[in-house]
Amino acid sequence: MGNADYVHSTTTNVVESAHRVAVPPPQPFLKSLTSSLKETFFPDDPLRQFKNKPPSRKLVLGLQYFMPILEWGPRYSLEFLKADLIAGITIASLAIPQGISYAKLANLPPILGLYSSFVPPLVYAVMGSSRDLAVGTVAVASLLTASMLGDEVNAKENPTLYLHLAFTATFFAGAFQASLGILRLGFIVDFLSHATIVGFMAGAATVVCLQQLKGILGGDGKVLCWDAVSFSSYSWLDSLIIDVFEDIYIYVQNKRRPKLFWISALAPLTLVILGSLLVYLTHAEKHGIHVQVIGELKKGLNPLSITDLAFGSQYLPITIKIGIITGVIALAEGIAVGRSFAMYKNYQIDGNKEMIAFGMMNIVGSFTSCYLTTGPFSRSAVNFNAGCKTAVSNIVMAMAVMITLLFLTPLFHYTPLVVLSSIIIVAMLGLIDYEAAIHLWHVDKFDFTVCMSAYIGVVFGSVEIGLVIAVVLSVVRVLLFVTRPRILALGNIPNSMIFRSVDQYPNANLVPGILILEINAPIYFANSSYLRERISRWIDEEEDKLKSSGETSLQYIILDMGAVGNIDTSGISMLEELKNSTERKGLKLVLANPGGEVMKKLNKSKIIESIGQEWIYITVGEAVGACNFMLHTFKPKPMTVNGSETWSDNV
Amino acid sequence: MGNADYVHSTTTNVVESAHRVAVPPPQPFLKSLTSSLKETFFPDDPLRQFKNKPPSRKLVLGLQYFMPILEWGPRYSLEFLKADLIAGITIASLAIPQGISYAKLANLPPILGLYSSFVPPLVYAVMGSSRDLAVGTVAVASLLTASMLGDEVNAKENPTLYLHLAFTATFFAGAFQASLGILRLGFIVDFLSHATIVGFMAGAATVVCLQQLKGILGGDGKVLCWDAVSFSSYSWLDSLIIDVFEDIYIYVQNKRRPKLFWISALAPLTLVILGSLLVYLTHAEKHGIHVQVIGELKKGLNPLSITDLAFGSQYLPITIKIGIITGVIALAEGIAVGRSFAMYKNYQIDGNKEMIAFGMMNIVGSFTSCYLTTGPFSRSAVNFNAGCKTAVSNIVMAMAVMITLLFLTPLFHYTPLVVLSSIIIVAMLGLIDYEAAIHLWHVDKFDFTVCMSAYIGVVFGSVEIGLVIAVVLSVVRVLLFVTRPRILALGNIPNSMIFRSVDQYPNANLVPGILILEINAPIYFANSSYLRERISRWIDEEEDKLKSSGETSLQYIILDMGAVGNIDTSGISMLEELKNSTERKGLKLVLANPGGEVMKKLNKSKIIESIGQEWIYITVGEAVGACNFMLHTFKPKPMTVNGSETWSDNV
Repeated sequence: MGNADYVHSTTTNVVESAHRVAVPPPQPFLKSLTSSLKETFFPDDPLRQFKNKPPSRKLVLGLQYFMPILEWGPRYSLEFLKADLIAGITIASLAIPQGISYAKLANLPPILGLYSSFVPPLVYAVMGSSRDLAVGTVAVASLLTASMLGDEVNAKENPTLYLHLAFTATFFAGAFQASLGILRLGFIVDFLSHATIVGFMAGAATVVCLQQLKGILGGDGKVLCWDAVSFSSYSWLDSLIIDVFEDIYIYVQNKRRPKLFWISALAPLTLVILGSLLVYLTHAEKHGIHVQVIGELKKGLNPLSITDLAFGSQYLPITIKIGIITGVIALAEGIAVGRSFAMYKNYQIDGNKEMIAFGMMNIVGSFTSCYLTTGPFSRSAVNFNAGCKTAVSNIVMAMAVMITLLFLTPLFHYTPLVVLSSIIIVAMLGLIDYEAAIHLWHVDKFDFTVCMSAYIGVVFGSVEIGLVIAVVLSVVRVLLFVTRPRILALGNIPNSMIFRSVDQYPNANLVPGILILEINAPIYFANSSYLRERISRWIDEEEDKLKSSGETSLQYIILDMGAVGNIDTSGISMLEELKNSTERKGLKLVLANPGGEVMKKLNKSKIIESIGQEWIYITVGEAVGACNFMLHTFKPKPMTVNGSETWSDNV
Repeated sequence: MGNADYVHSTTTNVVESAHRVAVPPPQPFLKSLTSSLKETFFPDDPLRQFKNKPPSRKLVLGLQYFMPILEWGPRYSLEFLKADLIAGITIASLAIPQGISYAKLANLPPILGLYSSFVPPLVYAVMGSSRDLAVGTVAVASLLTASMLGDEVNAKENPTLYLHLAFTATFFAGAFQASLGILRLGFIVDFLSHATIVGFMAGAATVVCLQQLKGILGGDGKVLCWDAVSFSSYSWLDSLIIDVFEDIYIYVQNKRRPKLFWISALAPLTLVILGSLLVYLTHAEKHGIHVQVIGELKKGLNPLSITDLAFGSQYLPITIKIGIITGVIALAEGIAVGRSFAMYKNYQIDGNKEMIAFGMMNIVGSFTSCYLTTGPFSRSAVNFNAGCKTAVSNIVMAMAVMITLLFLTPLFHYTPLVVLSSIIIVAMLGLIDYEAAIHLWHVDKFDFTVCMSAYIGVVFGSVEIGLVIAVVLSVVRVLLFVTRPRILALGNIPNSMIFRSVDQYPNANLVPGILILEINAPIYFANSSYLRERISRWIDEEEDKLKSSGETSLQYIILDMGAVGNIDTSGISMLEELKNSTERKGLKLVLANPGGEVMKKLNKSKIIESIGQEWIYITVGEAVGACNFMLHTFKPKPMTVNGSETWSDNV
């Protein structure tokens, strides 16, 4: 039976000759497990370079892996040095005032800002992979430290304990970062999506700005406060400082032209110098005007702080928690910055290796009186624009800071704190990336919701709340995609054997007597009940529609499995139940284009025999062709309930 | 330029004329949001039947929605009554001994088992949707109650408080179940996959069996213990009871033939009667042999217990937690049972409506001295095999239990507890579904791991640990699928324009000069970095291979987006970066078959102009055809780095 002469195809093309859908060649379980683990944890195959090398070479390669400076160091040239010198000095001029400002933000002694721009950049230059990243403290981590640690220990009443806990938190942050890198769990950082980070940073920046403004304008600011001796004395000097300097600074920042980057780079230092000069020359104090200044900064390099680490303290659990949270956030920013510049300059960065570098940087920093550092975007952008070539720019910056620490600290004696506030505020305004938020609104409104939730959570709740909300929403999105997958009805694109969604292609024609559904997600326990009920309902609605309009009733259900990446046992049960329920309705279930993993499971669970190997096609087109052949050759709608027997009789 | 005569196709078919990939017609945001929410929360469209009906009809339909008995009640016939009577009495004979046994398992007064088989089935008969489900207490929930509540309050020292807390936990379980149903959050229950439930139930059953055996064999069993007056007196009577009855019972259970279901249904009651008779007739006590018996059971129906609910107790938080955990587990079993039988008998069950029914059942039960009930599989299977037609079988069972409560309780005075233990043990053995576990091992080893983890967690840790481990592993699997998606290289199936994975179809031929990759997951923040790095590495490896073998170098990268269900802003950035990095390598990025959602986002983010509308094709075949046309018409590998300009010059 079955003669091609009887074919009455609904399309103009010839029915393609059927191809067999293959079950992939079986692999030993251990082999496929190993390759899955490898793909999960070592997607970049870092051990590839170690193959077929003598042991001495392997040792060298191993050392070079952990300390990349051993790899690019020998190739260093004078040209690179010139470029790195300029870049290094430029970022040093940013590092010094910003370091002092952010340390104040964290309620730590300002000198810590300078310490943290000395040792950590040196560690990074040895162990880090990015050529453009500039190491330093960041406002967000400083804010987090002040806020979370400040809830436990008051920085004014207990400055020594506060300081030691900050070092301990930095140690744990570094330990956590390094272990993420060693255990190759770096993909965890991927769960902080770009939308999350935009909202979170904007929220943190808003909080910092409000704090700083509160301090500047009076009242009990958490960071700055001063006693105005008299209202009149406040008004003329401080307002002069605030107005003039902020106007210049904001004007320069808002220009945001890369060519003028050096203005925004040098502006903070300029303001510091001008402000100190102003206070010094006017001998403000002698006139009875109190302006809070930085005061004395100790000379000398970083003191060791290993003995200060408070491992035995009662605050250890909260310190570990603060370390982990600040560590992850710092990591997210540093990794993102490193990747962005590497993408732009077309070199590779091993994310896990970078994490080890950041981790070591913070661990060593916690031993040498530094607090949490990472690679902030603003400073790295300045580094990049200034033409850096390698991480030596960080070494140059560290040297400049070292000189400052050894000789130049008295220069900062008269710097008004209000200048530091201005520096912080304007840097924060740069973090509020409203353009990115608008872009999110236009392109993907769920991402916009995530962004706004992070922002609102941080501003109106706390930093942890904002972060948790944003991460949970991001994960919910992923789960929703799998739990409520899209099912699309496919129609035939005219003059072809192509079948696409009728939603996307309004000119696609549904095929009479055949319902073609495409499932757009893996079929897992999380969605198998939903899929089964939804497909059943779809079939019922189609049949109702056809009944009332008097057209040919349904005979075939074709499931396009091309987008079903995988299936588990719940999914197999779902297919089995679907087959049974469609048979009871007198319909035949046909599968099209099942992938390798799906075919393996279908084969192992014996459901292939149940559906019938001849009812699994490689393309939707072939499935439709075969069904049409049956539809127009034989009587439709067999009388018996036991669908499969009837079909096999006829074929 | 561009003449078809110059086409030198690598396949024998004619290049299909290119079809345009459409951006779906834009929908107003509110409309698409509403339809997404509807699909998530109301996938079964329960309000469909309310359309276009007069208000009085809507009221009736509404009442019928919450109380299905109003819908099928009027259609009840005498035939149904006959079938339901038989089924009801059968399950009552199971309910009475099992109810008493499980109440003892929960460290509650045995009479509660009878109470819980009286009121809750009546509530379910009014509000439930399943025609086959038989309501009753379950061993697992009883065990959970004993274990979790027992950690807080000792049932022997504080029986009244323990009892009141059990009622309160039942109330909260019911409240939680009902609210899941009302808020249409029923899909949460889907997160307990079949593998999880198999492992979890087996673990709980193992724990119960070990407990019971410990009690029977002596020592301080948590549930049963007795003082053996003398070893010799223990040995002959108790071992007689144990040996004979368990042998019969286990033999009958292990037959598992549906036709003999009535044996397994009546066996417990028979054992109870025989056991009581044995103890009574031998006047065991008069011979100095102590055999623990149930003792006196109060006559009379359920006393009200609303006033016993301990809302003000200090144990309220733990009670709420116990209520939620037991509620979810009971719900998972009840919903699964309802769905299985509905699937078999080909009627629909609204999962959320069922949850409301279960919730009300437990709330009302907590007011009337009942503890947690659900629809256990074993009892429902007996109900089904006994030929039940509607939920009236539950009403019949309740009536039988009522008669027992009013008149027959003295009959249980002499029932030895060891008989109850046997009933429990054998019921538990039925829960250890090792066949299912073996099936999981064969079909899906990850599911097997989930199953074993749940089992081990319950047996060696605690019930909550086992459950948490299993759910976390299940969710991790879903996240892993999205975080580490498969990328497949596609090749051409000979004599066709079909392109499939070379892993699945070893005879598929790779196309020279073109690398075709299929991405099998949505492109989200969670996997965009991984995808970008993996694809870059793939390209590099391919180019290395081609270089060493001297074949044509790569010119085109075609991404098959057919299985990419959705994309977010991180994914869009990934595509942008991929385009830039491939351009720098002198390659051209081509997209094939992007779906509706993806095209919308590509359009909104303007990346379509960046890639070029003419480089997005509807099928991989068309994309390959166009690339081959270019490859064989023009010089390969343009000299300039700025890839896009060169291409547009030529086309």
